[in-house]
Amino acid sequence: MESFMSNDFMLHTPTARRLFENYAKDLPIIDYHCHLNPGEIARDIRFSNITEAWLYADHYKWRAMRANGVDEAKITGDASDFDKFAAYCHIMPRLIGNPLYHWSHLELKRFFDCDLVLNDRNCLAIWEHTAKKLEGDMSARSLIAKSRVEVLCTTDDPADTLSDHEAIAASGFATKVLPAFRPDKGLNIRKKGFREYIEKLGESTGVGIRTLEDLQEAYEKALDRFAAHGCVLADHGLDNGVDFVRPVTHLAGQILDKALRGGTVTAEEEIMYRSYMMRFFGRQYKSRGWTMQIHFGVLRNPNDRMFAKLGPDSGFDTVHGRNTVYSLAMLLNDLESNDALPRTILYSIDKADNTAVAALCGSFCRGDGSGMPTVIQGSAWWFNDHDEGMRAQIREFASVSSLGCSLGMLTDSRSFLSYPRHEYYRRILCDEIGRWVENGDYPDDEEALGTLVRDISYRNAKTFFGF
Amino acid sequence: MESFMSNDFMLHTPTARRLFENYAKDLPIIDYHCHLNPGEIARDIRFSNITEAWLYADHYKWRAMRANGVDEAKITGDASDFDKFAAYCHIMPRLIGNPLYHWSHLELKRFFDCDLVLNDRNCLAIWEHTAKKLEGDMSARSLIAKSRVEVLCTTDDPADTLSDHEAIAASGFATKVLPAFRPDKGLNIRKKGFREYIEKLGESTGVGIRTLEDLQEAYEKALDRFAAHGCVLADHGLDNGVDFVRPVTHLAGQILDKALRGGTVTAEEEIMYRSYMMRFFGRQYKSRGWTMQIHFGVLRNPNDRMFAKLGPDSGFDTVHGRNTVYSLAMLLNDLESNDALPRTILYSIDKADNTAVAALCGSFCRGDGSGMPTVIQGSAWWFNDHDEGMRAQIREFASVSSLGCSLGMLTDSRSFLSYPRHEYYRRILCDEIGRWVENGDYPDDEEALGTLVRDISYRNAKTFFGF
Amino acid sequence: MESFMSNDFMLHTPTARRLFENYAKDLPIIDYHCHLNPGEIARDIRFSNITEAWLYADHYKWRAMRANGVDEAKITGDASDFDKFAAYCHIMPRLIGNPLYHWSHLELKRFFDCDLVLNDRNCLAIWEHTAKKLEGDMSARSLIAKSRVEVLCTTDDPADTLSDHEAIAASGFATKVLPAFRPDKGLNIRKKGFREYIEKLGESTGVGIRTLEDLQEAYEKALDRFAAHGCVLADHGLDNGVDFVRPVTHLAGQILDKALRGGTVTAEEEIMYRSYMMRFFGRQYKSRGWTMQIHFGVLRNPNDRMFAKLGPDSGFDTVHGRNTVYSLAMLLNDLESNDALPRTILYSIDKADNTAVAALCGSFCRGDGSGMPTVIQGSAWWFNDHDEGMRAQIREFASVSSLGCSLGMLTDSRSFLSYPRHEYYRRILCDEIGRWVENGDYPDDEEALGTLVRDISYRNAKTFFGF
Repeated sequence: MESFMSNDFMLHTPTARRLFENYAKDLPIIDYHCHLNPGEIARDIRFSNITEAWLYADHYKWRAMRANGVDEAKITGDASDFDKFAAYCHIMPRLIGNPLYHWSHLELKRFFDCDLVLNDRNCLAIWEHTAKKLEGDMSARSLIAKSRVEVLCTTDDPADTLSDHEAIAASGFATKVLPAFRPDKGLNIRKKGFREYIEKLGESTGVGIRTLEDLQEAYEKALDRFAAHGCVLADHGLDNGVDFVRPVTHLAGQILDKALRGGTVTAEEEIMYRSYMMRFFGRQYKSRGWTMQIHFGVLRNPNDRMFAKLGPDSGFDTVHGRNTVYSLAMLLNDLESNDALPRTILYSIDKADNTAVAALCGSFCRGDGSGMPTVIQGSAWWFNDHDEGMRAQIREFASVSSLGCSLGMLTDSRSFLSYPRHEYYRRILCDEIGRWVENGDYPDDEEALGTLVRDISYRNAKTFFGF
Repeated sequence: MESFMSNDFMLHTPTARRLFENYAKDLPIIDYHCHLNPGEIARDIRFSNITEAWLYADHYKWRAMRANGVDEAKITGDASDFDKFAAYCHIMPRLIGNPLYHWSHLELKRFFDCDLVLNDRNCLAIWEHTAKKLEGDMSARSLIAKSRVEVLCTTDDPADTLSDHEAIAASGFATKVLPAFRPDKGLNIRKKGFREYIEKLGESTGVGIRTLEDLQEAYEKALDRFAAHGCVLADHGLDNGVDFVRPVTHLAGQILDKALRGGTVTAEEEIMYRSYMMRFFGRQYKSRGWTMQIHFGVLRNPNDRMFAKLGPDSGFDTVHGRNTVYSLAMLLNDLESNDALPRTILYSIDKADNTAVAALCGSFCRGDGSGMPTVIQGSAWWFNDHDEGMRAQIREFASVSSLGCSLGMLTDSRSFLSYPRHEYYRRILCDEIGRWVENGDYPDDEEALGTLVRDISYRNAKTFFGF
Repeated sequence: MESFMSNDFMLHTPTARRLFENYAKDLPIIDYHCHLNPGEIARDIRFSNITEAWLYADHYKWRAMRANGVDEAKITGDASDFDKFAAYCHIMPRLIGNPLYHWSHLELKRFFDCDLVLNDRNCLAIWEHTAKKLEGDMSARSLIAKSRVEVLCTTDDPADTLSDHEAIAASGFATKVLPAFRPDKGLNIRKKGFREYIEKLGESTGVGIRTLEDLQEAYEKALDRFAAHGCVLADHGLDNGVDFVRPVTHLAGQILDKALRGGTVTAEEEIMYRSYMMRFFGRQYKSRGWTMQIHFGVLRNPNDRMFAKLGPDSGFDTVHGRNTVYSLAMLLNDLESNDALPRTILYSIDKADNTAVAALCGSFCRGDGSGMPTVIQGSAWWFNDHDEGMRAQIREFASVSSLGCSLGMLTDSRSFLSYPRHEYYRRILCDEIGRWVENGDYPDDEEALGTLVRDISYRNAKTFFGF
């Protein structure tokens, strides 16, 4: 029996252990997609206790607590920080097989030198131990530095002035902190607040936005600003799934015009408008050498009662379930036909899409001599971002495409304590590769194996994004 | 090599064996969803041979026989009981990897003390051995008692007078045999026989049903009757998948009126009517503290030729394949918004829905301080109710939600011999937990592990349903 | 650690090794579905180097090269044969976990007695070694004979005169080379070239095709011709998924008439026409005792830019993703209701369909006393045709249906070097069965196990197709 989360955690063969130890463990981290708040990095914030660090903003944990019927007061309510932490400790033993179990204990080990198991018994000891530690060298930047993060990309709105990024860059912080461009608000034309948002975007770019041409001009200015701050990644959240129709410029213009005058945009019109804008953005990204990410399939805010109470991103989002791979194929085809397909990373929230998405990548990879894929599947996302899900994505992508081209892990997190997720992914990767080797499915060729592990864990991302 | 179905069957690590032996094996059974015939329990029926017990009503076995091209005469036709059994023995070796292989042999072991392998060679010996055993202490109630069933819930129509349940309760039978409320017939407004059914429902409740109000009154009386017999569970079979629209009372009323006058109800109207009724039922269940089960996604009777010959439930149903998780989310949201979401258990027939369903539960769990989930996924159902499928459900639910809250197994069976399915599930559960522990993914903490195993196997259901 | 692709490749238990060695290894091959060119068999073609044999026509390999950003000149362009091979060697190490890795090395071992690993280092040595070998006994027929192929079925158009098959039959070649009937071109009524195709079909059968009756007459003649050449299998590629409506003869006739006059056929009309023709073909196959194959769910040619450059079948096809199991059920029901359901093999391109397809088979298996299924799932197809995918199909089919009835492997390949895929499947099959036995899930009964392995690997197909 392996002891709990030992040095060999998740490494079930000698080859796996050797690969992790020799090639993966000490590599720096490129975290090319996360939701860290750049203002918090600029201010180099600190946490006064473990609840602040763990439970103030983590809707994964909130969700797990609700699944265990914990009182909402102890989740997002006004219970004391200690009571919240105690509630989290109390449900922990029931989370066997859940990534929170591993992530929480890895974070305790790596950042707090604490090997205690989270449960009722150890709750107070862990509370006190972590409080003491948090008094030490545990600011936002320390945590990032300690994790050997070479580059991290936050997720930013085009209207953002990027002043926080400016401040971070000016501070001489060793980690490159770059913005990533996420224009969802300008695409969700039927959402409340769209007009106000466009006004804000106009102000931030100095363009009075009245027409589609104005909008594009504003976005180009925003793109320039992001580029000037080192941005090379964009991200689109296509909720519910992908919808696409062949864009018609004058229709898109009319729809925007209607929206800006306060008219009601239909669902079909929204699809037309978005499709047009995706082609615009694709062309921009491609010409700038950026990479586009597409995250799709989430059903957001399905619970009206709790949305009214807590707003978005509070642990109620889920998997839509509609398969929209065909629409995604149409979108990629339209972009490719219009010289508007940049390098692209695809993430579906639905594990059932895995093979279809992995296969679709191959339909749009160019024989361009770059030595790199044009379109690639991202690592397992959100509800699939766990031991089972990561292994499934690794195996299915390997089976259908070329694992050696993978771009590795990203935290997708709002927390400064999430970096052990890269270690987690690397352990799984080494274990999967080790399994193939030990089974005689792949040669025990040290050079080839070391290359694979280093490429997937770190170097592919560095080359792909040009960091 | 493990010997065939030894004491350590399915228990592949020392931890798994220890957990099963010490915590799971001897627990009583709560079988909260089955299709046993209460009349057969009331009459305490007996079987004159193994064919009667195994092959008279089990469409799983019929289906397997047809997949092997057995003559229908030996399946549902007029071949002799022995010839039917011989045909089943003959195909057995081909069912490697099928749960019937395990269930059949487990039943032979547990109820008949017979270790013979089902095949041509042993057919006659097993036939004779089981016939002899069936002469002994093998009535319906004996089988239930021998299986240590503490509570079992049958599946009953609201028009049922529950006289069988009354008789069982009066008999002093140690196992609690409770009805569960399944109002599908009153929801399938386009099905032949709907009007006759509503008439029957009216008679059984003493309400002349002419309007939607009458119908609800009748159902309330039926619900009261079920409650008086200890019912705490309802069940809805949403065939083909879930369809939902926001209910409008007067439309639902008009549709019912049309149906009762013999008019033709459209598919859209049916959805409106059903959606209305689901809200009605949800509110009823919630206010009574019942749990609602939703079984969805079955394509029933797809083979017209065989339906004409053999009717429903004869082994031809299949997986519809349409993903309706979004509609299910809309239904749950409507219920929650109208104070009509009771505790709910979701079962999809389609394994591809697993992650989406597990995630959806989290969107509707309340932080209510109850220590229990509001909405939870049920264990693997029907076409997924096997070694692979159960393990997949356990792992995916653990990954996305909280395995420690699971409600464990249910037989969903028409047979008094199906109880070893609980043993089967518990073995798999202990093996999965044991694997996590032996791999170092979870601490080897005897107390935590014992609690998990006992909770999932038995205590969670007891608490959740208030038995 | 197992050494790379040793004799025990993929055989992880003693039982697996024993089963493969004693029962599977030396069986002949029945390759009932492939895309070999009968003209190349008739002419008994040879290859002057490994690139000709491996890379001239294999879009699996092209796709993998594009996923690695290889220059198209080295894929389908005018780079030298050596440079193309070198490019393939170069990406090989990145294809860990991909079936190409295994298939390529198996082919090197089995046909070229070469144990070298494909990579930059060994590229030249392998190039020279294989060139020398190809000078020897390595013609198309030698490769087939060396692989112990008893029967192989090519895939042929109804308008084909089958002269190549005639020549092969006349040549006394020991392997039975039979045509299989694939009438897709006559069903794709909206595709460019439909009228020309119908004219060609008319010419090849001596029927002037002006009406639906003429068309059916022509097809009957073609079916007779195929039957005279030993054909017993048909194949339908239902791209995008299955669409079905209840056929109406006069509508189908009108639609054909419109198409033949050059009118525009709508998507709905195509579905009507196809549905009609499927019933026609089903009846023909059934009355002739043929087996119908249905391959469904492929999204063909999604990349317009590359389609314009390279045409179809060049490595851009993908998984459509739409679940059409319900339409497939309607199609099978229509056929069964009209005495037009022949023995049928179902293949979905989408792994997420596995359970639904396996279950659907059971809905249309007749209790006909034949000892064989009526409708059965085929082995894992195309994007699922790899270690993970084959194991998934074997386990899911076993769980839901009857593995012992499986028809085993088929290459589905255009290459004379693909026969080791049968070995690959048999190793996986023996490993899966061995695992069940070693785990105590199935008795260690030599006779039953030998029967299972031989039946699935070879004898079931022989019996099912009547070879």
